[in-house]
Amino acid sequence: MNTLQQTSALEASQKLFVKMVVSNWELQNQRLSGWLAKMPEERLLEPVAEGKNRAVYLLGHLIAVNDGMIPLLGLGERLYPELDALFVKNADRTFEEIPSVADLKTKWAHLNQTLAGYFAQVEPDEWFKKHNAVSEEDFAREPHRNKLNILINRTNHEAYHLGQLIFLKA
Amino acid sequence: MNTLQQTSALEASQKLFVKMVVSNWELQNQRLSGWLAKMPEERLLEPVAEGKNRAVYLLGHLIAVNDGMIPLLGLGERLYPELDALFVKNADRTFEEIPSVADLKTKWAHLNQTLAGYFAQVEPDEWFKKHNAVSEEDFAREPHRNKLNILINRTNHEAYHLGQLIFLKA
Repeated sequence: MNTLQQTSALEASQKLFVKMVVSNWELQNQRLSGWLAKMPEERLLEPVAEGKNRAVYLLGHLIAVNDGMIPLLGLGERLYPELDALFVKNADRTFEEIPSVADLKTKWAHLNQTLAGYFAQVEPDEWFKKHNAVSEEDFAREPHRNKLNILINRTNHEAYHLGQLIFLKA
Repeated sequence: MNTLQQTSALEASQKLFVKMVVSNWELQNQRLSGWLAKMPEERLLEPVAEGKNRAVYLLGHLIAVNDGMIPLLGLGERLYPELDALFVKNADRTFEEIPSVADLKTKWAHLNQTLAGYFAQVEPDEWFKKHNAVSEEDFAREPHRNKLNILINRTNHEAYHLGQLIFLKA
């Protein structure tokens, strides 16, 4: 291979890897959205199991955490920063007011569209740069702590809570 | 960059991807092993929530599915093929005999050691080759269906069930 072929081999390899990670992310989103579409809204006010979080809380939690990727990956401003106080910093049922299920479903769909739009624009090599919660020094030592690693981590996080949500059956 | 530098950039990049995926896999295993270490064995005979799978079933299911990666990735023979009949092909409580929790804990630890040993030996570019459940034709069209993608998928699968297991508190 000549130098040009090698460069394109590196780019192709990065592009493929990004596709692998983004596809797995989309798969979790599709599963969650599919579950959500089948579930009557009022059922989301039930805990997913006795004494556990309500489904509506887990949905809000996933929106808040996934939304947090936007600034972490340097993509822009968060859509719903106000959700952190409810769904990340506080436990379920420790606050009186909670957004309606209809409102959270709209936010979930809009966030996924927004993230998909951003992800489609990120150049493959950009994913391998440092994210905004790791220092230059740490990143130099641990280059796997890059933007794409955040998406792998958030995909696992979503799978973890999806395993809990599906305990509620329509 | 000259050709040699480009080749090594590609190799370094593949090595980094593999590290990202394997690290996230190990993280889920550590979380599950940490939960398991704290949990009295008899508690695993309880369902993780009312009417749901018993923890012992989910543990057996994860061992069986993860063990299935060994032939799928072309690494060798499965350690515990006999677990499929119980924990993959059949639902919980549809069979009389179940391995003891102590036995499954030993198998879980041994399987993780075995997989870690295999993963340490696989050359980075090998991970981007086709696994044994995709045809040559499909792989030519969809090169993201490679060995590393199996590990990403199994990591999400483990996270999903870990989210259920931790409903049992020690």
